[in-house]
Amino acid sequence: MLEELPTLAHVLRMLQQVPYLASKNLYKVASHFLHMSPQQMEQFCAALEATKEKLSQCTSCFFWQEVSAKCIFCASPKREHDIICVVEVWQDILAIEKTKGYNGMYHVLGGSISPLDGINADDLTIEPLLTRVRSGAIKEIILATNQTPEGEATATYIARKLKDTSVTISCLARGLPVGSFLEGMDRLTVFKALSERRPF
Amino acid sequence: MLEELPTLAHVLRMLQQVPYLASKNLYKVASHFLHMSPQQMEQFCAALEATKEKLSQCTSCFFWQEVSAKCIFCASPKREHDIICVVEVWQDILAIEKTKGYNGMYHVLGGSISPLDGINADDLTIEPLLTRVRSGAIKEIILATNQTPEGEATATYIARKLKDTSVTISCLARGLPVGSFLEGMDRLTVFKALSERRPF
Repeated sequence: MLEELPTLAHVLRMLQQVPYLASKNLYKVASHFLHMSPQQMEQFCAALEATKEKLSQCTSCFFWQEVSAKCIFCASPKREHDIICVVEVWQDILAIEKTKGYNGMYHVLGGSISPLDGINADDLTIEPLLTRVRSGAIKEIILATNQTPEGEATATYIARKLKDTSVTISCLARGLPVGSFLEGMDRLTVFKALSERRPF
Repeated sequence: MLEELPTLAHVLRMLQQVPYLASKNLYKVASHFLHMSPQQMEQFCAALEATKEKLSQCTSCFFWQEVSAKCIFCASPKREHDIICVVEVWQDILAIEKTKGYNGMYHVLGGSISPLDGINADDLTIEPLLTRVRSGAIKEIILATNQTPEGEATATYIARKLKDTSVTISCLARGLPVGSFLEGMDRLTVFKALSERRPF
């Protein structure tokens, strides 16, 4: 039936490629766009297309930067330039910045090593990270990859590569999340919280 | 921090307005768009913008139609024109068409009566539906609104408005879904299946 409505079929195919939409939500999202006014649609598309012209990735930390400005981290005189927090994706930086508990540099890997998904170390920005660290100006590196097998493998890979340097390598603390109950926690988290216990 | 990246902040605000995206998925979807090539982005936006130029709503049944063609239902000589299936939204038509069990006309209400959400009978295409029915060429009307309080209220409202006509009014059968187990079913469904039982 949709083959008789090529315009509708085409936009559904396009939306299907967007992650988290290719399910039952697809039609509701399509509805949202179909019922937009032409002006709203223009604004929406202009915002999307502007990202192609006005955003680029910083060549040092690989976070997004406005093409017309410098990287808000790498070019900031107010931040500590000798400590790098290594994250998998740029969104992780937003999560860390929200804490206001970190004032150093960042490095976006672009994912984690996952041979099953065809992602090897070469597909990530590990080489540029090693170059940054070997430049000598770095004192500490925080491996803030996800607590997943892939994230931990990636952290291990990077730590091994940096074995011969004098840089301090740290990773995020593991344990019980704030506000959690021991009873409801999974076994592995409780185990980590026990084995990595700290003085009160 | 995002205030220093206005292009990124703007596209995030735009995506936030899309239903089903304004949650944790937002950043992953944003990532999808940020990593698209300019060509892919152009294609995506062209598909969206084409819907504004090339799609309109049929003035009779309110389903989508290509501007350059007639309504695939209302103008079809192969379909029965004296029976109308009334649905809340256009997506419901896709679900019914997939069954290949219906060959009549449709009518898209554009939602259901829901005073709490500020949606009254006047906001839906009920008046045009009544005009269609009163034209005299209609034998049966199937109220295929959702099995929700709002959907049932809308069906009741329409049925009441058509009380004085000779048209047959029917609604979808209620009962146990195919492949379901009695044990796992909610009470109300079992009750409906019992009270609306049919000869074997």
